Amino acid sequence: MKSYTEYLWFNTAKRREYINITPEVEKALAKSGIKEGMALVSAMHITAGVYVNDAESGLIQDIDEWLEQLAPYNPDYRHHRTGEDNGDAHLKSLIVHHEVIIPVTEGRLDFGPWQQVYYAEFDGQRRKRVIIKIIGE
Amino acid sequence: MKSYTEYLWFNTAKRREYINITPEVEKALAKSGIKEGMALVSAMHITAGVYVNDAESGLIQDIDEWLEQLAPYNPDYRHHRTGEDNGDAHLKSLIVHHEVIIPVTEGRLDFGPWQQVYYAEFDGQRRKRVIIKIIGE
Amino acid sequence: MKSYTEYLWFNTAKRREYINITPEVEKALAKSGIKEGMALVSAMHITAGVYVNDAESGLIQDIDEWLEQLAPYNPDYRHHRTGEDNGDAHLKSLIVHHEVIIPVTEGRLDFGPWQQVYYAEFDGQRRKRVIIKIIGE
Repeated sequence: MKSYTEYLWFNTAKRREYINITPEVEKALAKSGIKEGMALVSAMHITAGVYVNDAESGLIQDIDEWLEQLAPYNPDYRHHRTGEDNGDAHLKSLIVHHEVIIPVTEGRLDFGPWQQVYYAEFDGQRRKRVIIKIIGE
Repeated sequence: MKSYTEYLWFNTAKRREYINITPEVEKALAKSGIKEGMALVSAMHITAGVYVNDAESGLIQDIDEWLEQLAPYNPDYRHHRTGEDNGDAHLKSLIVHHEVIIPVTEGRLDFGPWQQVYYAEFDGQRRKRVIIKIIGE
Repeated sequence: MKSYTEYLWFNTAKRREYINITPEVEKALAKSGIKEGMALVSAMHITAGVYVNDAESGLIQDIDEWLEQLAPYNPDYRHHRTGEDNGDAHLKSLIVHHEVIIPVTEGRLDFGPWQQVYYAEFDGQRRKRVIIKIIGE
């Protein structure tokens, strides 16, 4: 079994941002030399997510507004007694989930026609990380 | 390390449908010959999901109505400016998630007593795919 | 490829409880001897979840109240015609998801600074199980 690990760093200009990281995951896969296996892409922070969906700007805005409805910014979260103001970002991260696992077949991400991997930042404007870990042969 | 890949095709009669694919995943596992490892079951489309829960028809209807409340069909999604009308299906897919990973122990899916794998179609009536990828030994 | 499997048992005092199981997962990893790979932590029941987030008691209460808003206890779920009263627990489990997969690097869980694994019980006061399955080398 081979294994390959890489870390991506982000520091977004806005508090919430959605970044297509498919090219970075594909580059990591090429470097790994792995042909058959699985690629894990996982946020290393508890106020960010990783998801697979469409690279369509209207939809991304829909997702952002919808997440704000389901898990709104609100000064009154108990978590804020710690001095934080990012309770909503934790809840948004729970909805979209913080990681995906992508099948690797014949040396490529075995995605359907429209699938793309996104990093979803819910509490940005500071340095944060994603791990890519690929195992296989 | 062994690896086994199979694709399941769906073309549902209704726009939204929930299909128990546990037997198909078990058959794939038997064909793989893998005894210890992990089975990834992942929708290859961005308007469908894969989840693990109960094979109880009342609950499935509860899940469907609840998803429609949290991510309702609505003509006004920005995504619809592309000509699509399936914005809700993308959001429903984000809630239930598009993939699961199932532990494989002694050649069987290592599930608890009521766990079953479901394919959740949110924008059906056309050909769509799920990948099963099993790795292990 | 090495593989290691362990089961954790829970019997919570309350119906809903959130239990930090990071130490148990770390112990399982140490026993496995695996240095590079992936650790799957998965609830074996359909009314419980496993997620990664912060070990902060205010936030955990926020998460609990927020899940109760999104998937409220309600006597009227169709699922209850079977004699159950835990429809909400199934829906809460779908939101937080029932499993996580954690990267393993140099023999440790490759987590960011605040990431912790939680078992989320939504229908407790009875014996339930989580599987830890680690594969790698």
